[in-house]
Amino acid sequence: MDLLKEKILKEGRVVGDGILKVDGFLNHQIDVDLVSAMGKDIYEHFKDGNVTKILTIEASGIGLAVVAAQYFHCKVLFAKKGRTTNLGNSELYTSKAYSFTHQNENTVLVSKKYIDANDRILIIDDFLAHGEASRALLDIATQAGVDVVGVAIAIEKGFQGGGDQLRKEGVNLYSLAIVDSMDDGNIVFRED
Amino acid sequence: MDLLKEKILKEGRVVGDGILKVDGFLNHQIDVDLVSAMGKDIYEHFKDGNVTKILTIEASGIGLAVVAAQYFHCKVLFAKKGRTTNLGNSELYTSKAYSFTHQNENTVLVSKKYIDANDRILIIDDFLAHGEASRALLDIATQAGVDVVGVAIAIEKGFQGGGDQLRKEGVNLYSLAIVDSMDDGNIVFRED
Repeated sequence: MDLLKEKILKEGRVVGDGILKVDGFLNHQIDVDLVSAMGKDIYEHFKDGNVTKILTIEASGIGLAVVAAQYFHCKVLFAKKGRTTNLGNSELYTSKAYSFTHQNENTVLVSKKYIDANDRILIIDDFLAHGEASRALLDIATQAGVDVVGVAIAIEKGFQGGGDQLRKEGVNLYSLAIVDSMDDGNIVFRED
Repeated sequence: MDLLKEKILKEGRVVGDGILKVDGFLNHQIDVDLVSAMGKDIYEHFKDGNVTKILTIEASGIGLAVVAAQYFHCKVLFAKKGRTTNLGNSELYTSKAYSFTHQNENTVLVSKKYIDANDRILIIDDFLAHGEASRALLDIATQAGVDVVGVAIAIEKGFQGGGDQLRKEGVNLYSLAIVDSMDDGNIVFRED
């Protein structure tokens, strides 16, 4: 998606070892006009998939998921990280996701009552690198026995391989921008 | 706001000691149509305040903040909880907020570069009980030296007193629904 790629080139910053900081428009400050356009783009890609629910994970995926849901006219379900007293201790789907950014493992939690047997799930997240978070959400959809229409990602770090592995496994993965390399701070996108 | 109050009466559940669970439409699953209407209601209330930025806190405030920002045509800045390697260690505004729900204290973090001296901030959150999270965001706005137009809350637990204390201190606090009691599971709203 050109608008996002332009924004990444203009405002994204490559720091340290493989980290792309986009906290000026995506995962700390949110450029709502941009994110709304991204939500519409995701809708255009998956609009024939009969999506009934969008599944994302707190916190950075929520904004994009909500604006996409405005187009799909469906509800958003955001998975929680770590055990929280407010969700209760029973009737949860749980999975695990290791965060390479934060170097910790999160338990990913979703209340069973908000996924119906007939749901057709679209998974949305802001980043995909190794694919840990997406795999946890896919695992939860599998546990729930529901169809996954696809996975929509704002920024895929292609050089970390998680996305291509999911594609090999047959996941309908759509990333709005795929960064194939960012050596020396020079961001190179995969061609559409 | 009648639509929200009706939803709370229909789907909210009072559990344990002063906990109102609204995870079916607000802070786990998000009813995007409802939340969009809530965002519009907040806009109608604060539309003359020249809001330039919405400040919220992860995770449950983000959805409401983003849809409200679509009306204000401004960006959303969501404070993070706890120290995160992805934000860097310098140039942060920090404050503290105790969570009575989760019984822990969070450090609330905002990058200094996303608040300008001329910003006029609207704080948005899903819940206000003792007011700890709102106070942390107000504290950060004070540190940044910017004007706070007001605080917009989806559900205020009036019986826990944090909201009325903020009003006494002169904060322009607007809550879409104020629950003044919920003894024996019987939810009573404050009259508008």
